[in-house]
Amino acid sequence: MSTDPTCAPLAGVTVIGLEQAIAAPLCTRHLADLGARVIKVEQPGYGDSTRHYDTVVGGLSAHFTWLNHGKESAALDLRAADDLAVLEAMLAGADVLVSNLGPGALDRLGLGVDELARGFPRLIIVDISGYGRGGPLDHKRAYDLLIQAEGGSCAITGTPGHPAKPGIPVADIGTALYAYSAVLAALYDRERTGRGAVVPVAMLDVVSEMMGFALNQVLHAGAEPVPVGMGSPMIAPYGAYPTSDGQKAVLGTTSDREWRRMTELMGCPELAEDPRYLHNDDRVAHRGEVDAVVEQWCATRTLAEIQDAADKAGIGNARLNGVRELAEHPQLRERGRWREIGTPSGPVPALLPPGTARHWPVTNGSVPALGAHTDAIRAEFAPRVAQPRRT
Amino acid sequence: MSTDPTCAPLAGVTVIGLEQAIAAPLCTRHLADLGARVIKVEQPGYGDSTRHYDTVVGGLSAHFTWLNHGKESAALDLRAADDLAVLEAMLAGADVLVSNLGPGALDRLGLGVDELARGFPRLIIVDISGYGRGGPLDHKRAYDLLIQAEGGSCAITGTPGHPAKPGIPVADIGTALYAYSAVLAALYDRERTGRGAVVPVAMLDVVSEMMGFALNQVLHAGAEPVPVGMGSPMIAPYGAYPTSDGQKAVLGTTSDREWRRMTELMGCPELAEDPRYLHNDDRVAHRGEVDAVVEQWCATRTLAEIQDAADKAGIGNARLNGVRELAEHPQLRERGRWREIGTPSGPVPALLPPGTARHWPVTNGSVPALGAHTDAIRAEFAPRVAQPRRT
Repeated sequence: MSTDPTCAPLAGVTVIGLEQAIAAPLCTRHLADLGARVIKVEQPGYGDSTRHYDTVVGGLSAHFTWLNHGKESAALDLRAADDLAVLEAMLAGADVLVSNLGPGALDRLGLGVDELARGFPRLIIVDISGYGRGGPLDHKRAYDLLIQAEGGSCAITGTPGHPAKPGIPVADIGTALYAYSAVLAALYDRERTGRGAVVPVAMLDVVSEMMGFALNQVLHAGAEPVPVGMGSPMIAPYGAYPTSDGQKAVLGTTSDREWRRMTELMGCPELAEDPRYLHNDDRVAHRGEVDAVVEQWCATRTLAEIQDAADKAGIGNARLNGVRELAEHPQLRERGRWREIGTPSGPVPALLPPGTARHWPVTNGSVPALGAHTDAIRAEFAPRVAQPRRT
Repeated sequence: MSTDPTCAPLAGVTVIGLEQAIAAPLCTRHLADLGARVIKVEQPGYGDSTRHYDTVVGGLSAHFTWLNHGKESAALDLRAADDLAVLEAMLAGADVLVSNLGPGALDRLGLGVDELARGFPRLIIVDISGYGRGGPLDHKRAYDLLIQAEGGSCAITGTPGHPAKPGIPVADIGTALYAYSAVLAALYDRERTGRGAVVPVAMLDVVSEMMGFALNQVLHAGAEPVPVGMGSPMIAPYGAYPTSDGQKAVLGTTSDREWRRMTELMGCPELAEDPRYLHNDDRVAHRGEVDAVVEQWCATRTLAEIQDAADKAGIGNARLNGVRELAEHPQLRERGRWREIGTPSGPVPALLPPGTARHWPVTNGSVPALGAHTDAIRAEFAPRVAQPRRT
């Protein structure tokens, strides 16, 4: 891996983030990971509300630290003409604008996307919203929980009658990743056409895409998928089974051939020929029965015995880890996945971003204090603002 | 939106998918959505195992239909020298290879990534695995459930003592989206440097990134996050509350200012001054109490009354929808989010991809039958294979 930052794929790309919470900040953080310069515009005095979720990282919140390293923070009051002019000067020199302010906020600032696109034809404008433009809900506020609830994600998680929100904020993170990929596709496109882009990203559309398998079930089979705890409504057997040493073995088969190997492993190969369990949809229909067989087999073995035997038989298996076990996971540690980033109160560990090319350098930037770069940004951009006024 | 496919951002880009299940197929499907030519290489006779999950879409499965429209299917037996030579001829003309075959499968075919990178220096090689190279688990099979369990995602979902797998396969989909963005970043980089890329994407790294907020909690506060059903371990109040008309209102506040507005809405503004509930972490510490206040307020109102009042007060709110309600959601229908795609048994509805620029055409390709394009692919690439042998 190179350490020369000028070799980073997004070296020379400038990104402005009118951003808060998770979706836009994670998008721009990944752009920074690839070498882009990211200027996060925050409200003076308060800033991004995730700064205030808690104070566990030396006064900064767990969320804010996760999402904002490698950025500059400019505290600008966009309702004041001077600061708005600074932002406009920044946009004139920028490649990308990512915004996830509330419904109508850009328009109220006089920064509607059509106007921006006319004014800055090479700018890539990513306009993140909860529900997109148009339709009965486009005025509504949107947070991860709200979009996951509205989009059916909670209904297929948990157990029947007890829906649950996935702990990972999939609506926010999915939106971040679609916004991130849209920026990259638009940069590639602009490289050849010279043209910027306006990219609306609606969180509801993102969750709906992620629900594609469940939507097809309902559209074509008519059956509402039922949440099955640790299992998958679409596959069986697939779940977490108690072991003789008080742990939980996670096992799954995703094909009939794996089911055949699993019946051999469990010493009941006759079940592979049983017409009740022949194909995956047969096993889903008899989920309780196939689960009971796996349960019985796991109950008399330790987790280590189960994992070893399953590995040898070519059956996927895992541990049911808590967050502490993930933090200490040897697979992350031994592969050098942890790096150090800066914060106002000193260096802290952070994970390397997933999915970067082997030869790209990774930028280990710092988490900015609110407005840490305001003066420098003003000094850099305010002269450009003033000039046209003097002529 | 243009309908000229030559204006698509990835027009002229050829992608080979050595792919199965969700992660690689969703990555390449999105590349196809942007105009790339995607050739899916499948095992003769059986193909991608998701073809066999069920038969609800005129014989095709819900998963396979979701993930594979817009692709060509070439059924090649890569253990046979002739077919392997066809694949190598395809790779010589391709821009991108995306693979998520099992651990070591590429190496066994003589297609190790280092060898491929040497042979095809402009090729962008995305090597998806469960656990990456190195470390104690790199030999292990990986499916969504297994990686979510190993990565702590299930432990922060559900309720205490009853972990649950998020219904949306976040490990698979997240991996797809990191692979997809890596391809786009590498195409942009190659446009300027002429150099391809080798991009390892490990599913465990993806889930770990998505767990960033929870990891910071454990690393800095030492406390294992506890799953809270429909809530978020990090924010309160935030959840689903029964209404007087037997529905569930989903409400959340993500900042102290929203909490203030919510107390006014509920007619108890004195709570906003109460030191027990002043900041988000105070409210998280007294989650039961703030939840009880919201619960009581919702119990005497209909869902419509609650949503109307919350909208007016600037408080985020949503319905707890099932999958059928998502399929019929007016916000998707009225914004024209449904399109028609082809399948071997006729046209079916599919959602437009999220996050595409307004001026990009979207390709509405078909779901291929297994091997539907094998003959055409052989005719196109086999001559290139034969030529060097003749000289």
